[in-house]
Amino acid sequence: MADKSEKTKARLPRGFADRSAEDIRAVEKMMATIRSVYELYGFEPADQPLIEYTDALGKFLPDQDRPNEGVFSFQDDDDQWLSLRYDLTAPTARFVAENYERLPKPYRSYRSGWVFRNEKPGPGRFRQFMQFDADTIGTPGVAADAEMAMMMADVMEALGIKRGDYVIRVNNRKVLDGVLEAIGLGGDENSGRRLTVLRAIDKLDKLGPEGVKLLLGPGRWDGGKEGEGDFAKGAGLDDKQAGAVLLATARNAQGQDASVNANATYQEGVGELATIEALVRAAGYGEDRIAMDRSVVRGLEYYTGPVFEAELLAEIPNEDGQIVRFGSVGGGGRYDGLVSRFRGEPVPATGFSIGVSRLMTALKNLGKLDSADVIAPVVVLVMDKDTESLGRYQKMVGELRAAGIRSEMYLGGAGMKAQLKYADRRGCPVAIIQGGDERAKGELQIKDLIEGARMSAEITDNAEWRAARPAQVTVAESELVAEVKKILVAQAADRAK
Amino acid sequence: MADKSEKTKARLPRGFADRSAEDIRAVEKMMATIRSVYELYGFEPADQPLIEYTDALGKFLPDQDRPNEGVFSFQDDDDQWLSLRYDLTAPTARFVAENYERLPKPYRSYRSGWVFRNEKPGPGRFRQFMQFDADTIGTPGVAADAEMAMMMADVMEALGIKRGDYVIRVNNRKVLDGVLEAIGLGGDENSGRRLTVLRAIDKLDKLGPEGVKLLLGPGRWDGGKEGEGDFAKGAGLDDKQAGAVLLATARNAQGQDASVNANATYQEGVGELATIEALVRAAGYGEDRIAMDRSVVRGLEYYTGPVFEAELLAEIPNEDGQIVRFGSVGGGGRYDGLVSRFRGEPVPATGFSIGVSRLMTALKNLGKLDSADVIAPVVVLVMDKDTESLGRYQKMVGELRAAGIRSEMYLGGAGMKAQLKYADRRGCPVAIIQGGDERAKGELQIKDLIEGARMSAEITDNAEWRAARPAQVTVAESELVAEVKKILVAQAADRAK
Repeated sequence: MADKSEKTKARLPRGFADRSAEDIRAVEKMMATIRSVYELYGFEPADQPLIEYTDALGKFLPDQDRPNEGVFSFQDDDDQWLSLRYDLTAPTARFVAENYERLPKPYRSYRSGWVFRNEKPGPGRFRQFMQFDADTIGTPGVAADAEMAMMMADVMEALGIKRGDYVIRVNNRKVLDGVLEAIGLGGDENSGRRLTVLRAIDKLDKLGPEGVKLLLGPGRWDGGKEGEGDFAKGAGLDDKQAGAVLLATARNAQGQDASVNANATYQEGVGELATIEALVRAAGYGEDRIAMDRSVVRGLEYYTGPVFEAELLAEIPNEDGQIVRFGSVGGGGRYDGLVSRFRGEPVPATGFSIGVSRLMTALKNLGKLDSADVIAPVVVLVMDKDTESLGRYQKMVGELRAAGIRSEMYLGGAGMKAQLKYADRRGCPVAIIQGGDERAKGELQIKDLIEGARMSAEITDNAEWRAARPAQVTVAESELVAEVKKILVAQAADRAK
Repeated sequence: MADKSEKTKARLPRGFADRSAEDIRAVEKMMATIRSVYELYGFEPADQPLIEYTDALGKFLPDQDRPNEGVFSFQDDDDQWLSLRYDLTAPTARFVAENYERLPKPYRSYRSGWVFRNEKPGPGRFRQFMQFDADTIGTPGVAADAEMAMMMADVMEALGIKRGDYVIRVNNRKVLDGVLEAIGLGGDENSGRRLTVLRAIDKLDKLGPEGVKLLLGPGRWDGGKEGEGDFAKGAGLDDKQAGAVLLATARNAQGQDASVNANATYQEGVGELATIEALVRAAGYGEDRIAMDRSVVRGLEYYTGPVFEAELLAEIPNEDGQIVRFGSVGGGGRYDGLVSRFRGEPVPATGFSIGVSRLMTALKNLGKLDSADVIAPVVVLVMDKDTESLGRYQKMVGELRAAGIRSEMYLGGAGMKAQLKYADRRGCPVAIIQGGDERAKGELQIKDLIEGARMSAEITDNAEWRAARPAQVTVAESELVAEVKKILVAQAADRAK
């Protein structure tokens, strides 16, 4: 036995969570549905390890002594830096680059798994979370991007989200890139400012055009007023430049001035968007399912063309109890540079990532997820604790299990009252009881715990219920399985009502 | 496009592996079967994060500057050490200790997931691998251990492993502990030597009694002869002591001398073993399924009572092509100290861990695993690349998918020959072809790729096959789904033959 004074504290590191049985079952069910859609589209499962060389993850190069900014990193025995993956895209790019020759091209694959962020945790912000991605690698045509958008619309409906309660928004990064070129923000020397613009636009929903304009221009105080909160440095655009950016990223943006219209990248982006729209409409996906929306930019630097976002329009209570649109549950886009980086030749790619926990929270709120089809086990109580009796109880659960009935023998040392309390806590449907008297007669008692609970809750009509379905019966040992089956069937019929 | 001279090398760190689609599907299927048995026994799913405080993992305390011996560790922002879990038992112990009051007791749970070892990788030895555990926490009775052994026997048969091809071996750590006490190796001061004895006995299969005797005594040269290989220091037992240990760990050990027989721990161990044997026999599990075997000790320090090992007896070719018994695919035992460590009160616990990759390798070799029920997608070839044509092809795949038929539109830019090569590489069952001529007539061609492959392989009897089932048909557009279904049904019937 451990010494109390020396005991270790049982605690979870910040930003990590244990999952409940209910959550695990719900996620399993949800992921099986997503998987079935990906499979239907011809995607194949893939899986990469959770640890990669830090330089293969791309964004976080080991130019510092300890590259722990945003990712969890550690040095291997040979002094090379390793990191836990922060998304599923970077390892996918590494895998495809390494195995390019032997893969069918285009290579459609899907993968799910834990990713890690070494960031400050907060409410609903974890340092370990699950993503479920699909990627098509090796084709430059936007037909692949159109397919991504359609597949995500199908995923939403397969999960039970009604048409009108979600939308897949599509834009093209080239549209904004073209505008930035046209207003003089092209070239490598402006990549930092372009990223600032991108992140500002990504905050349109949160800050509105006025707040974003400050971020595009001189900068903005977090609190909204001078001196309130931290100051976020802006991209330094002048009014005309900021105006062009805001015009290009308005939800249904149309007109632009001549210099922007003349930009080739801009035109390419607009053209690709039109092609995607034509393709999805031809396949029967209306604007209510897939919408072209110039306000979608996605915060990640590596997108090079079409970008998508899956948004839940349903109004759901948020963490503070306010009724709000749930918002994004996933997104993605074309990342033509990520695989190329390893191969020195163009390897175009596009993909989509679903935030599993976030989508599950949404489905729970929409009442689209339950694990009610999992029934707690039948429990065989332990009335006598000698080895011979235990063997007999063990045989009973064996018979029940052989008939496919989930069941367990009580394993603690407690008395009957505590055992029934345990059964109640577990939500057990039925308890089997055999003490010395019953055993002598070759009988056992079967307690219908659901009916019993209902009867004690509905005392007034007690007699009627008792007549309809007894809460406890005494049967011959040989009747055990048949009788338990009968009760479980009756309980299922009750639940169906 | 990336500059060739600066490109990053795409490579996987040593000891990590990408998984193939086939492997992923096989593991999914195998794990679903294991899960169904655990559920039938009333176990509930649980899940802990992959990262824990290093001190919570127990074995590897941060008394060094960098506690990276055996585990992957890194320092958090607040300077506390974190580690990737090296098994599922330690995080389970932390979770149960942290949530003890609110859990039903005994608490039966199961969990699967990746674990990490920062060790030297070798053939078949990975630094990331998957385990699938079941644990019962909160009951000291060996009925819980007996249940573990029976559940594992049931898991083996549910996976299709025939009776006689596996055995669950059971022993009790107290038997050996009692012998060590009796020969003067009890007490904290001898814990190091006891561990040396344990690890020596764990090598019985590999080295035989003579080799183990050296490890129990003065030590042993790895190569088997003096000066060959490294020298492993022994436990320093004299001949009489070593003899007592070997006698106690012979497979069907019986007699012991008076001093050992008088030892209380030894007697407790022998008694518990007899109880487990009585319980499993009463439940109908014969010696062919669960065998008492004194040679099982398990290498881990933390076991305190019954220990188990699931062994495959089937003779299977090993990595070098030799026909050998496959051996252990999992094991476990009672670990009464692990949860107690956090709580300063006794919290008895027992568990079992299945090595997922190892078991899958065994099932593959036994021919018990296949993913042949997954059919590659029907492929709609792209004969014309304009947006309008793409939309039409897209609509065809949409119709097929709506009928539940896995299908995809070819997404690359290649010609018909390359597209058919792609379909072949993917193993596609059917290809749909519509060029300008067919479109004008409202028709399309459907190619039965399986039949086509067979026909070209069996040229002699070509005419006969052609009569029985054509490799290519031309049908009206409206017949697409019905005709593809017909071909897939015919292919399935062929496979069933």
